[in-house]
Amino acid sequence: MSKFTQEQASAMEEVRSASFTTRRTTSPGLEEMLYKPFPVLDHGFVRVIDYMGDDASVVQAARVSYGRGTKRVSEDSGLINYLLRNWHTTPFEMAEIKFHIKMPIFVARQWIRHRMASVNEYSARYSLLDREFYIPDPENLAAQSVSNRQGRGHVLGADEAQRVMGLLNEDAQRNYDHYLDMLNHTEDGAQIDESRQGLARELARMNLSLNFYTQWYWKIDLHNLMNFLRLRADPHAQFEIRIYAEVILDILKAWVPITYEAFREHRLEAATFSGEALKVIRQMVAGAKVDRAETGLSKREWDELMAKLGTV
Amino acid sequence: MSKFTQEQASAMEEVRSASFTTRRTTSPGLEEMLYKPFPVLDHGFVRVIDYMGDDASVVQAARVSYGRGTKRVSEDSGLINYLLRNWHTTPFEMAEIKFHIKMPIFVARQWIRHRMASVNEYSARYSLLDREFYIPDPENLAAQSVSNRQGRGHVLGADEAQRVMGLLNEDAQRNYDHYLDMLNHTEDGAQIDESRQGLARELARMNLSLNFYTQWYWKIDLHNLMNFLRLRADPHAQFEIRIYAEVILDILKAWVPITYEAFREHRLEAATFSGEALKVIRQMVAGAKVDRAETGLSKREWDELMAKLGTV
Amino acid sequence: MSKFTQEQASAMEEVRSASFTTRRTTSPGLEEMLYKPFPVLDHGFVRVIDYMGDDASVVQAARVSYGRGTKRVSEDSGLINYLLRNWHTTPFEMAEIKFHIKMPIFVARQWIRHRMASVNEYSARYSLLDREFYIPDPENLAAQSVSNRQGRGHVLGADEAQRVMGLLNEDAQRNYDHYLDMLNHTEDGAQIDESRQGLARELARMNLSLNFYTQWYWKIDLHNLMNFLRLRADPHAQFEIRIYAEVILDILKAWVPITYEAFREHRLEAATFSGEALKVIRQMVAGAKVDRAETGLSKREWDELMAKLGTV
Amino acid sequence: MSKFTQEQASAMEEVRSASFTTRRTTSPGLEEMLYKPFPVLDHGFVRVIDYMGDDASVVQAARVSYGRGTKRVSEDSGLINYLLRNWHTTPFEMAEIKFHIKMPIFVARQWIRHRMASVNEYSARYSLLDREFYIPDPENLAAQSVSNRQGRGHVLGADEAQRVMGLLNEDAQRNYDHYLDMLNHTEDGAQIDESRQGLARELARMNLSLNFYTQWYWKIDLHNLMNFLRLRADPHAQFEIRIYAEVILDILKAWVPITYEAFREHRLEAATFSGEALKVIRQMVAGAKVDRAETGLSKREWDELMAKLGTV
Repeated sequence: MSKFTQEQASAMEEVRSASFTTRRTTSPGLEEMLYKPFPVLDHGFVRVIDYMGDDASVVQAARVSYGRGTKRVSEDSGLINYLLRNWHTTPFEMAEIKFHIKMPIFVARQWIRHRMASVNEYSARYSLLDREFYIPDPENLAAQSVSNRQGRGHVLGADEAQRVMGLLNEDAQRNYDHYLDMLNHTEDGAQIDESRQGLARELARMNLSLNFYTQWYWKIDLHNLMNFLRLRADPHAQFEIRIYAEVILDILKAWVPITYEAFREHRLEAATFSGEALKVIRQMVAGAKVDRAETGLSKREWDELMAKLGTV
Repeated sequence: MSKFTQEQASAMEEVRSASFTTRRTTSPGLEEMLYKPFPVLDHGFVRVIDYMGDDASVVQAARVSYGRGTKRVSEDSGLINYLLRNWHTTPFEMAEIKFHIKMPIFVARQWIRHRMASVNEYSARYSLLDREFYIPDPENLAAQSVSNRQGRGHVLGADEAQRVMGLLNEDAQRNYDHYLDMLNHTEDGAQIDESRQGLARELARMNLSLNFYTQWYWKIDLHNLMNFLRLRADPHAQFEIRIYAEVILDILKAWVPITYEAFREHRLEAATFSGEALKVIRQMVAGAKVDRAETGLSKREWDELMAKLGTV
Repeated sequence: MSKFTQEQASAMEEVRSASFTTRRTTSPGLEEMLYKPFPVLDHGFVRVIDYMGDDASVVQAARVSYGRGTKRVSEDSGLINYLLRNWHTTPFEMAEIKFHIKMPIFVARQWIRHRMASVNEYSARYSLLDREFYIPDPENLAAQSVSNRQGRGHVLGADEAQRVMGLLNEDAQRNYDHYLDMLNHTEDGAQIDESRQGLARELARMNLSLNFYTQWYWKIDLHNLMNFLRLRADPHAQFEIRIYAEVILDILKAWVPITYEAFREHRLEAATFSGEALKVIRQMVAGAKVDRAETGLSKREWDELMAKLGTV
Repeated sequence: MSKFTQEQASAMEEVRSASFTTRRTTSPGLEEMLYKPFPVLDHGFVRVIDYMGDDASVVQAARVSYGRGTKRVSEDSGLINYLLRNWHTTPFEMAEIKFHIKMPIFVARQWIRHRMASVNEYSARYSLLDREFYIPDPENLAAQSVSNRQGRGHVLGADEAQRVMGLLNEDAQRNYDHYLDMLNHTEDGAQIDESRQGLARELARMNLSLNFYTQWYWKIDLHNLMNFLRLRADPHAQFEIRIYAEVILDILKAWVPITYEAFREHRLEAATFSGEALKVIRQMVAGAKVDRAETGLSKREWDELMAKLGTV
């Protein structure tokens, strides 16, 4: 569980308890969640800091409307589904959301590859990092996958898991101890040795390992958020980023329920078939029996197709 | 003046009269302006449709804060000035604004070159365009500049201005008449000639000239909005887009007054001097008399420098 | 057919006849096409001006290679197909192409919406536009579609087509005559009336209609080019931009033949099915007879699905 | 010094020794450098992999030319200086360059913040990272700056430097040993303990510290490269990224010598003064004696101004 200092907890509480009057479109589902930290992994979290727009904003922009732009729920829903299905992406850029996220550095390194977003990261040149690092739960400590060079396979046995957790923990603790030692001050800022100057923060931080936590503000529009979620909520994504994507999916559902349903239907649960795969499907639907050798599909492509068609 | 249909006027009124409760940061200055059309040119306007964040959001993101992030006004102002002066641009990406804008097509063509923004334009493939086109006021009808190949110079004489306005008006009216004729329906949608099918809208629109009005939703973050304003509120920008930039400058002032002041000080009223120009300034400040021939500056660069230094 | 001045023709010839030695990866297919204008519509064209990389560059980047990075053709082809199928898009950003394109302004207005590209447009503030405008061939003069609010339907009858072509031509000619008149000079630059100053070019241009031709340099990476082609070579795209996309598809094939085949297979000829549609397909493949009423598909979605499955 | 395996060295040699014929614009200065590794820090390097265009391409695009587009060198140079001075940035987007770069992870984390570029990074999910980490030279081991919260100050004394280097080295070595241990194989890939499965690479990598080296392909256009260099070749940038920027500056000079000179003059050696600072300069140039108390400048701004004017 993410632990907060008294100061952080009361800052979050204070900002959450304020209330304002606005003429702007408001999402009741998201208002309820605003500023609350949703825990992820052992020390991470996702918090919504601000947002602009909701389902109605997508419709309003698509119609270049003088007013609110929405009609009956069924019409709005039909339009949103149509837009999403046909890759009319610009109306979804018209809603925006801003998060405060805390995550291990190796997760942040994957996350930042999504360039169509704005980021302000906590600066370890400017401030001290906390003694917080990620240690996977035993059920998430898996062996290298045999079939997939970039994935993970079976869960490690108890002994091996113990060994790994021990190494990760000892190294992180010691690296942090030495980080402080090089800075020549304790966690409380007290000088250790007055004969030393203390290394600059921008240098000392290099001794920390990639499982240390960092945090940032991350702002993104609804279209690009769905791109992020399509890739990172996918089973092929690394578990440690997927778990963040899943929390954000719940937030998406509260924020823009109609768009969320369309996204689930036309992206998350949808499947794309290549030209060759489509030929096979057409033959099968017509009742023909298809032999892989007669198609242009490789063994791997064939297996993927059959899996998607539920015939295995 | 932009004229609105009864339907448009009441849609704007209705959306403006609504009021909601929110936990989000609110800009009182911008709330007051929300949804109001600010007239620009003869039929154009700028309306703010939505926004996210304010001056405090810049500060909050720069500090990766758990709470609101702001301290005393003087400290916040100092930080915002520091960020802007030193090109720390990402915190300014954390506030966002969305406009509804109506402008002549040739203005839209310059505007769209700012790629870091989101746009939904009214579709002339889908709907009929209105009989609205831009005719400059006589004081804005200027001759080609002699010194600047892409600018304008002296105002035209009354006769020539009359002639130009006549031609622009006649051609736009006739082009619009023929647009309807090709569509085979009147402005009210009544069929003209039942023996004709009527040309597709996506084709008929090509007969309209570049001074016809279009409209769009335009969403941009504060950092990129300032980039837009720096270039388009500049005296070298074409008058017809600059006048929009000036209206938006007033909106910026109401929305984020601290950022606005910093922007005015460090961008709009600032000046950049090249390495060579800087050498000249240093000599002059030291009391030396400088001869252009001894510098690396061209006649044009020298004149620009002297103008900036107020010595001419 | 696009006509060129003597000066333009010899400039193109000269640049084409030069030859240099380079260490860089070279695409023989594209070298052959370099600088040649491929005609599109009545006065437009597409010319390749420069490029960087080829199929091997995609492979080389995906492998972060010290050398050329390619292995056997079959392995490279397998990797490129894998990358494209699984949305690993960054290696395709590693090849780049630059075009010189001439197209009607209303086409340019659709084109520019693809933001992930670089553009330098011929400036009508700076220079005179030519008397060149697009008049569709009779077979491309179609009526408004009845079923699709933003498409076109049946071709116009001969009489109506004649009428439309007459109006388009007359208006464009007259608008251009008045453009020159307002500028107070002829196409050759001779002054018309010495008592007039001549309107600034940046203003006079607004009298031209949207079928006038403009031209620009357009640079884009391979990944974003494929995005452009997926949307603009699609049957739902307007004919006047689709015809450009089709010429560029041929260029793509010459430039990166392996990527082209993968793109055709996994994008152009591929189909995406929603979660609900996928359930229907699974039932049909299993031999069941499916009744639309029992599915979550609308009439429109059902019809689209059946069309894709070839059962209609 | 960066050390290469025999395989890497011969791959680089082979790709460098090839030669092709092309119609494309070629930069002789850059051809000479192509594929050569320029060493940076203790194990890093910068290599140019490919490029498109040169100074002439900037000019050609600005003129939307049918031919090569360049005129006399003095005219081209004048145009390039004009474009850069007046922020006409799009012609500089028309040239492109691609690098292979090896750098410590904490440097990569700063680098990636430049979003307008394409990146393919070596995947530690897919492959083993090498035992290579950055240890600063004693002269680069500096204390925290007293005046600048995010900078460094005096160089550490010999004893303290020794201590720091010892800690950095020991921790990195042990973290790497444990990385291999968790993977359950040696650097050569030999299994360590057959009773263990070995942790997945995507997890084991989290034990490495931020001074370990990573590598990537990085592609960027000339305009955005200059933005990168303006910020990262700046004295305020952290030394470990600035040293890369300086190597790239030399490459820029070889590639586009005219643009390089303009960039040096109008960006690197230029200075921007705020509105208030400009007022002070005008008074000083006019011979007046200015008292800070009468200006709107803070102590810090005043000191910066005086430093730029060379009066201190």
